[in-house]
Amino acid sequence: MSAPVAAGPTIADVVFPDQLNHRGTLFGGAAIALMDRAAFVAASREARTDVVCAGADGIEFAHPIEPGDLVEANAVVERRGRRSMTVAVVVIAENLRTGERREAVRGTFHMVATEAPPQWLTTTEAPQGAAA
Amino acid sequence: MSAPVAAGPTIADVVFPDQLNHRGTLFGGAAIALMDRAAFVAASREARTDVVCAGADGIEFAHPIEPGDLVEANAVVERRGRRSMTVAVVVIAENLRTGERREAVRGTFHMVATEAPPQWLTTTEAPQGAAA
Amino acid sequence: MSAPVAAGPTIADVVFPDQLNHRGTLFGGAAIALMDRAAFVAASREARTDVVCAGADGIEFAHPIEPGDLVEANAVVERRGRRSMTVAVVVIAENLRTGERREAVRGTFHMVATEAPPQWLTTTEAPQGAAA
Amino acid sequence: MSAPVAAGPTIADVVFPDQLNHRGTLFGGAAIALMDRAAFVAASREARTDVVCAGADGIEFAHPIEPGDLVEANAVVERRGRRSMTVAVVVIAENLRTGERREAVRGTFHMVATEAPPQWLTTTEAPQGAAA
Amino acid sequence: MSAPVAAGPTIADVVFPDQLNHRGTLFGGAAIALMDRAAFVAASREARTDVVCAGADGIEFAHPIEPGDLVEANAVVERRGRRSMTVAVVVIAENLRTGERREAVRGTFHMVATEAPPQWLTTTEAPQGAAA
Amino acid sequence: MSAPVAAGPTIADVVFPDQLNHRGTLFGGAAIALMDRAAFVAASREARTDVVCAGADGIEFAHPIEPGDLVEANAVVERRGRRSMTVAVVVIAENLRTGERREAVRGTFHMVATEAPPQWLTTTEAPQGAAA
Repeated sequence: MSAPVAAGPTIADVVFPDQLNHRGTLFGGAAIALMDRAAFVAASREARTDVVCAGADGIEFAHPIEPGDLVEANAVVERRGRRSMTVAVVVIAENLRTGERREAVRGTFHMVATEAPPQWLTTTEAPQGAAA
Repeated sequence: MSAPVAAGPTIADVVFPDQLNHRGTLFGGAAIALMDRAAFVAASREARTDVVCAGADGIEFAHPIEPGDLVEANAVVERRGRRSMTVAVVVIAENLRTGERREAVRGTFHMVATEAPPQWLTTTEAPQGAAA
Repeated sequence: MSAPVAAGPTIADVVFPDQLNHRGTLFGGAAIALMDRAAFVAASREARTDVVCAGADGIEFAHPIEPGDLVEANAVVERRGRRSMTVAVVVIAENLRTGERREAVRGTFHMVATEAPPQWLTTTEAPQGAAA
Repeated sequence: MSAPVAAGPTIADVVFPDQLNHRGTLFGGAAIALMDRAAFVAASREARTDVVCAGADGIEFAHPIEPGDLVEANAVVERRGRRSMTVAVVVIAENLRTGERREAVRGTFHMVATEAPPQWLTTTEAPQGAAA
Repeated sequence: MSAPVAAGPTIADVVFPDQLNHRGTLFGGAAIALMDRAAFVAASREARTDVVCAGADGIEFAHPIEPGDLVEANAVVERRGRRSMTVAVVVIAENLRTGERREAVRGTFHMVATEAPPQWLTTTEAPQGAAA
Repeated sequence: MSAPVAAGPTIADVVFPDQLNHRGTLFGGAAIALMDRAAFVAASREARTDVVCAGADGIEFAHPIEPGDLVEANAVVERRGRRSMTVAVVVIAENLRTGERREAVRGTFHMVATEAPPQWLTTTEAPQGAAA
């Protein structure tokens, strides 16, 4: 029996002190690492083959993220070629006491299949909905 | 502007080697820590006040979780008293190459508010839906 | 030459900032992970075979644990069946400047042998002393 | 007495198992986090004020990085405006047994000063040498 | 109520994959870090004041430590001056399946009090029992 | 094509909160672990064979290291025998806002080759310059 894939955030976690920079907010590198994992999940679900990150673009930090916030990385496959995919990732930070949610980071990740996924050969031009 | 809370997993992440035990599967303690964070999120969203974990019960491991799997912890507030809540947490592991999803762990967490949340006083008997 | 097993704490460590929650005290999940490792050690020593955690119950947090405190998890095998063991774990926190020690967490862990340990077959009803 | 800033890599470390993905090579997010720290160092040295990462572009992974490799992130301030800087970062991986070194990742990071650094006001058009 | 200090290891933990070097055995630096924490605990208990590590000597690695082993660091205050202490630390590794225990590392740590502990002034020549 | 080894620090990183002790400065054990990795790099580059740390001596802490500082570990092979090397490591901490740099820790590490490196047999008495 296989449980259905839930709609909702691809990756989510509470910000803990071990992810902070010396200013006491979420370290930018930790945020990008979170986005990279979310892109990996969305691309893996889309292709059901092993994928790796080939690059990233357009990463923009809008707001610092505080310890104790919930961070959610939402990843959506936007374009899909024969062996590669473009995944848009948006990070939402939620203040768990006030409920305020706002976009904190966004960016685009390029994922490449490490093996030829046969089912892709017939669907390369099909536009994809979100995998996640 | 505040983005809406998404339905879906409360906490989710990919299993990386730094969370494995010496057998090469997800360390049980790491799984429980994930559940604890999910319970914290669900209870915080329910009460919008600061909460702490007072205890846990009925933790059951059904399947080992492999590196590269996605783990999702889904937390639902099941009962709510004047200053405390009971949160049920279920961990789903998804093999990202096959898409197979199965329940890996479940348990119940007891969360307590550290300050008196005024809005609770009038709603203590209201049955709650899922906070997450 | 084999050194004797020392009496004393099964697992012990100083609380460092990377184990704190956003409130600045030891993250509950980190405390449970410590207990899980202590239960693993006690059960492994008892059975001298590979064991895994099948579940946990009755976890109760009595006091928050501060950074710089020493935390000791003491694990004792309380009951032993043919292939499983029940391990009681108590966590003591010691303020290293004042010497004050107090119980911070307690709980019970269920450990299962992953292989049939032959020596168990003849000793299943023997009451156990502490393995640690 | 103040030791001179050494020429050479801005950030460097040996790749350890806790930074690997489930494929056993350096996790892409860990590589980007390394680059982010290198950009922070180069921009801090250039401006001698507190800086934060506002974004990143053109991140390209050329080769996987193996455990036991040395990774060096070299960051150079390429352009400097009134309150912002563009930092180019190149990651070199060195196989410590063969001595082979090759470029593994590159990217551009945008750093912003969080306070007005007075000395910048008179030097904004000065072409910059590398800060690192 | 204050629980008595247990005899036994000062610091103890199971070796997990996040502490391994690329050879798959416990990273030497992780072992020394464990010893440093054990020396801190022993010196803190001896002086009941805040102490810091001023140096270390005679660190010798005798055997590699495998993942899944229990490592115990036993720290004993050997000499105590007006504001400083010398702490001998021995690390024992225990194979939890065979029960074999052997000395893996030893070394000496020099600890210094950061504040003048009044009770020391009258007891500097008093021979010390082990603090741990 | 192989990029040249850069002169400069062997290992370098920014100090983040997850490496602090409870006093809020770099944990001594983390500093020693950094030095151990630097010694490993210098000895590996010297011998181009696999090396392990056999011991350490003369570790001296001169100044505490603050979060946000850059730490650089510079390792130089000082003596080289048939199968072993002595590596001197100096840690410099740089305050990135003021540019002040000062020596924070120093020590000597003893590294041993785990396999016989043939090229060593003819050069055992040759004094070595810095490998890093």
